Amino acid sequence: MTHLHDPAWRGFASDNYAGVHPAVMQALADANGGHQVAYGDDVYTERLRAWVRSAFGEQAEVYPVFNGTGANVVALQSMMKRWEAVICATSAHVLVDEGGAPERTGGFKLHPVATEDGKLTPELIDVQAWGFGDQHRAQPAVVTITQSTELGTVYTPEQVRAVTRHCHAKGMRVHMDGARISNAAAALGCSFREFTTDAGVDLLSLGGTKIGAMGAEAVVVLNPAASEGLPFLRKGGMQLASKMRFVSAQLLALFDGDVWHQNAVRANAMAARLRDAVAAIPGVQITRSVDANAVFAVLPADVTERLQQQFRFYTWNEMTGEVRWMASWDTTEEDIDAFAAAVAAEMGAVAAR
Amino acid sequence: MTHLHDPAWRGFASDNYAGVHPAVMQALADANGGHQVAYGDDVYTERLRAWVRSAFGEQAEVYPVFNGTGANVVALQSMMKRWEAVICATSAHVLVDEGGAPERTGGFKLHPVATEDGKLTPELIDVQAWGFGDQHRAQPAVVTITQSTELGTVYTPEQVRAVTRHCHAKGMRVHMDGARISNAAAALGCSFREFTTDAGVDLLSLGGTKIGAMGAEAVVVLNPAASEGLPFLRKGGMQLASKMRFVSAQLLALFDGDVWHQNAVRANAMAARLRDAVAAIPGVQITRSVDANAVFAVLPADVTERLQQQFRFYTWNEMTGEVRWMASWDTTEEDIDAFAAAVAAEMGAVAAR
Amino acid sequence: MTHLHDPAWRGFASDNYAGVHPAVMQALADANGGHQVAYGDDVYTERLRAWVRSAFGEQAEVYPVFNGTGANVVALQSMMKRWEAVICATSAHVLVDEGGAPERTGGFKLHPVATEDGKLTPELIDVQAWGFGDQHRAQPAVVTITQSTELGTVYTPEQVRAVTRHCHAKGMRVHMDGARISNAAAALGCSFREFTTDAGVDLLSLGGTKIGAMGAEAVVVLNPAASEGLPFLRKGGMQLASKMRFVSAQLLALFDGDVWHQNAVRANAMAARLRDAVAAIPGVQITRSVDANAVFAVLPADVTERLQQQFRFYTWNEMTGEVRWMASWDTTEEDIDAFAAAVAAEMGAVAAR
Amino acid sequence: MTHLHDPAWRGFASDNYAGVHPAVMQALADANGGHQVAYGDDVYTERLRAWVRSAFGEQAEVYPVFNGTGANVVALQSMMKRWEAVICATSAHVLVDEGGAPERTGGFKLHPVATEDGKLTPELIDVQAWGFGDQHRAQPAVVTITQSTELGTVYTPEQVRAVTRHCHAKGMRVHMDGARISNAAAALGCSFREFTTDAGVDLLSLGGTKIGAMGAEAVVVLNPAASEGLPFLRKGGMQLASKMRFVSAQLLALFDGDVWHQNAVRANAMAARLRDAVAAIPGVQITRSVDANAVFAVLPADVTERLQQQFRFYTWNEMTGEVRWMASWDTTEEDIDAFAAAVAAEMGAVAAR
Repeated sequence: MTHLHDPAWRGFASDNYAGVHPAVMQALADANGGHQVAYGDDVYTERLRAWVRSAFGEQAEVYPVFNGTGANVVALQSMMKRWEAVICATSAHVLVDEGGAPERTGGFKLHPVATEDGKLTPELIDVQAWGFGDQHRAQPAVVTITQSTELGTVYTPEQVRAVTRHCHAKGMRVHMDGARISNAAAALGCSFREFTTDAGVDLLSLGGTKIGAMGAEAVVVLNPAASEGLPFLRKGGMQLASKMRFVSAQLLALFDGDVWHQNAVRANAMAARLRDAVAAIPGVQITRSVDANAVFAVLPADVTERLQQQFRFYTWNEMTGEVRWMASWDTTEEDIDAFAAAVAAEMGAVAAR
Repeated sequence: MTHLHDPAWRGFASDNYAGVHPAVMQALADANGGHQVAYGDDVYTERLRAWVRSAFGEQAEVYPVFNGTGANVVALQSMMKRWEAVICATSAHVLVDEGGAPERTGGFKLHPVATEDGKLTPELIDVQAWGFGDQHRAQPAVVTITQSTELGTVYTPEQVRAVTRHCHAKGMRVHMDGARISNAAAALGCSFREFTTDAGVDLLSLGGTKIGAMGAEAVVVLNPAASEGLPFLRKGGMQLASKMRFVSAQLLALFDGDVWHQNAVRANAMAARLRDAVAAIPGVQITRSVDANAVFAVLPADVTERLQQQFRFYTWNEMTGEVRWMASWDTTEEDIDAFAAAVAAEMGAVAAR
Repeated sequence: MTHLHDPAWRGFASDNYAGVHPAVMQALADANGGHQVAYGDDVYTERLRAWVRSAFGEQAEVYPVFNGTGANVVALQSMMKRWEAVICATSAHVLVDEGGAPERTGGFKLHPVATEDGKLTPELIDVQAWGFGDQHRAQPAVVTITQSTELGTVYTPEQVRAVTRHCHAKGMRVHMDGARISNAAAALGCSFREFTTDAGVDLLSLGGTKIGAMGAEAVVVLNPAASEGLPFLRKGGMQLASKMRFVSAQLLALFDGDVWHQNAVRANAMAARLRDAVAAIPGVQITRSVDANAVFAVLPADVTERLQQQFRFYTWNEMTGEVRWMASWDTTEEDIDAFAAAVAAEMGAVAAR
Repeated sequence: MTHLHDPAWRGFASDNYAGVHPAVMQALADANGGHQVAYGDDVYTERLRAWVRSAFGEQAEVYPVFNGTGANVVALQSMMKRWEAVICATSAHVLVDEGGAPERTGGFKLHPVATEDGKLTPELIDVQAWGFGDQHRAQPAVVTITQSTELGTVYTPEQVRAVTRHCHAKGMRVHMDGARISNAAAALGCSFREFTTDAGVDLLSLGGTKIGAMGAEAVVVLNPAASEGLPFLRKGGMQLASKMRFVSAQLLALFDGDVWHQNAVRANAMAARLRDAVAAIPGVQITRSVDANAVFAVLPADVTERLQQQFRFYTWNEMTGEVRWMASWDTTEEDIDAFAAAVAAEMGAVAAR
């Protein structure tokens, strides 16, 4: 078998439409050959543990898993009793994009809060942080925030710290969904640690897939006192890889070095380039702050439709006509320029009518 | 990063200690580059669907997943109502090795039946197939069999047919856990289809990982009338890969061609070679029929202990001292001969005392 | 043992603070003595089935359960596949007062919609009724409405019909939480059937406890095609009474005759009397339409506090100071007048400051 | 409504075919009238708490629930983490008669062990008490024993103590399903405390229904360190009664005095009378020790069939023809003698052939 697809084609639908970074492919080859103990007792997973300690602090633990839903659900379960619940933004992936896995598979309730920009604040958290001790209320015990958010915004370390300080004071724990943590770190120009461990986050879903892995995520325990039973929950959650060396090797290839950073800088820069290009086009409205690698905009519906015949991307909100354009680690300047030109051409055709 | 491990070292602990077959590595490289639609709408998954139809019949559907526990739990959920239950052997992986995932994550009860050799029969199934319509009993609705079994035995097509005929007559459906289906097919010298679709099996967990994939399994629906909701159950079961092309490419590399067969023939032959070698050693008792790639034996406990200092393998039953030796797709004749020699030497030392 | 409590004391906290109507006590005595088949094969449950058919149509089935949460969760489970979800109002008991039972015990997700008055409409339902067929979204399959609502309002039969017509057109089913269905029917001056079966409702949680039973609710299946597996779901949901004759006898005492109606007329009239009395007091604001037996009002916080030292009732919203006063089947005119006088006195003291 | 049934008819099918003891009916009347705080903050539940402390020790806590399945599942959940599991006998009600509620609703796995007589011993427990720390195994954390057992046998206090000592030494906790605890205490001639608290049991499901209540059970926490979250688990498990005063009043009527004892002495004596009467009949084989209120016997199938046309009772094992006869708190000497005479007559007819 050779390529069944055109490896030169790229779109703007999602950063998980992209493929695998060459460094990750090389790492998979290096991890191959001979036998390694299954289920995590291999040298690559051991090396990953060392990297996690160096990056997040000596107390940190890591549990590689298959995908982001798995990371989120397993992490959250480990932070809660059976009767506890999670506060999240109404835009949270865990609420809207995981097919009910948290409730049905994880067995826990989500208490959603509407936000302006995808980011929770102490005030917003308090909309749901009540009823402690009331047997009729699923007990709020964990707050989950997404970094960067599903709306393309990024929490500053101070904003994260405000959330964790508030939650800890109320006896709640804080989880960060870091499916796009690399984009956030690149945008902030700081290390992961500055807005996770050092900002009081208890557990992290560390995302590798969107930033160049084949399929590799991990639960990172930053505060071991906030988590219990992860090995059992990962297995029972069907997220335990037998040949785990190959999951760990992917994460090492990205994170034990600067591949993640190069990839994120690239993706973020391409999103900024796209924002700048289309913002200048009359009739196109950029709707959200482009902090990381996502651009949201409103266009005329017929323009969207014609663009989607040439380029792959999603309509985010059918009612408002808002669309989402994602830049990936492999997006090029040419990709952006060609797309922006197409937008300009379609909008020009509209203006000329 | 280069190898952190010794790629020349191999043991007998499990077929998932082995690495990835070169053809699978090549397929991953071929599937890389550019963008592909995520979550299964890619050309590699489309090609996999075509292969499944050709191999299992035009009605067959395929849903790639991450691991065997995921395949089993998602497949079984799709075959049952919320209040139904599964009959299985007491040796079944789904009962003893999945950390409670069926009950806790899948939400269904297992009704176990003791067997001599890991294989269910109509008579054994009837030990649990009762209470239909009784609201106090979790309703038996599905029977799951493992091919090859956890005890290294293989169902003949006729034996599978006897099970499915019996179950269907009682209104029950039949699932096959095919984590080692390649070893079974090679042992039987027949196609997958002869003992699945053609023998009346309704759903199959198709195993790729143990026979040379990096991490790739699939739920194969052989009888669409016996399954419902798989796309949703896979997602909610946290088994939906975003970059699915790389899961599908692995399965294609193994199955759309004869890699699976070569690998299974090799593994089975190495198990037979080991059986023959150690059966000749006085004091070593082969305890089960070596139909596929597993050898079970009883040795003196101190011999086992000393062997385990040189070679990796598991004690299967602490009480009886029974051990399990697995051959893998990459096991060599030299591996077997060296190990058999070590067994002979240790047993000789015992005899000489 | 004689009374440990003062049987003359009554408050306004909840209609389940009230005791048991004498007709129900008599029915329990009548059902006692000798043996009856357990788990529902008794003559009282058989008689209840006949009443349900006469009241809701020949197709109707009834499954007595212990409490309202049990009725709701079991009913909803029977209306859905494992991967489906329920649309409800943000004020719904099932969302906010059942301790996560729907998610954790029932295993299904709730999609909430904010309302003005606790009532869903086709437009409001459409806020969540989307994503059909999208594997990432827990599939909206059932809409649950509460009659009378948690905010004391009542759907007209036409409003119910608008909801069911809309839902059925989209392939969704409709459940009614009728914990206070008697109050609604009395308010509307119509039979249960007019706003349930005849208005297209598929399943009903029929409430007995709040209207004079000791503890008796039931799932009533109005449309058998919309429900499956109820006997098994009730048992697995831990809602199957062994001595069911005593649950059924309670429901018969209330509903097979006009006890329910007398009790509801009384409770509703007392709520109206309270509304009229306090609405006339300067500084007291009635905040919601008093359609049934609940009165919502806003008072100065210190007045609430002093009133709560004399009378039992709940603050509904800590932020706005809104309180809820419930009238029960046993509330008297003297109770209302004494309470209204106390409100007037406390408000007068405020005005005099 | 008056009696719809013949209050003079009694059978031998189950102790929950019996009705309600007059003392319980009186207690329900006494608890009625006026308002009481719902959900457990009433004076009857408070009195029940005092009785539980006096009966089981000052540390003991009580949580009334609706039925035995509810008591068992909620109690067990409170004793375990999400990933833990329960060891039970293969005859345990929790395994075979609860419709999968433990697995599906409780979310936990059961590890069954076959027994001779329904009683677990340290040796039998060890058949399943292994794999601690192994992520692939649902972790054994609780052992549940039934007193008296489903097979009519009774643990001595010493036998219970042997179980608890063994389990505690392995870090496991012990639950007792006391659906028929009164029969066991009467048989042993000792207090509940002697074979629960004093014998090291951690949690108890206290059964009221079978010994004369209308429907009242309770989770009794004997060792608060072994349980967590019960108020939330009871609510989420749909076992929280709104008008709880009436559940608590039933339990007080039975247990805060000697009604339970009189009823159990009666039931046990009637079982013994039946055993003695039928054991003397040639061809009837008593199969199990009649320690409490259950008699198991083997009869010719056609005799069973003819007897079942006159008297209600269950065939326990279709294959062996074993039947179960239960005596209840209301069984009379005349009931027993008439039944024994019928058995004798039918067996005589057989002998005469």
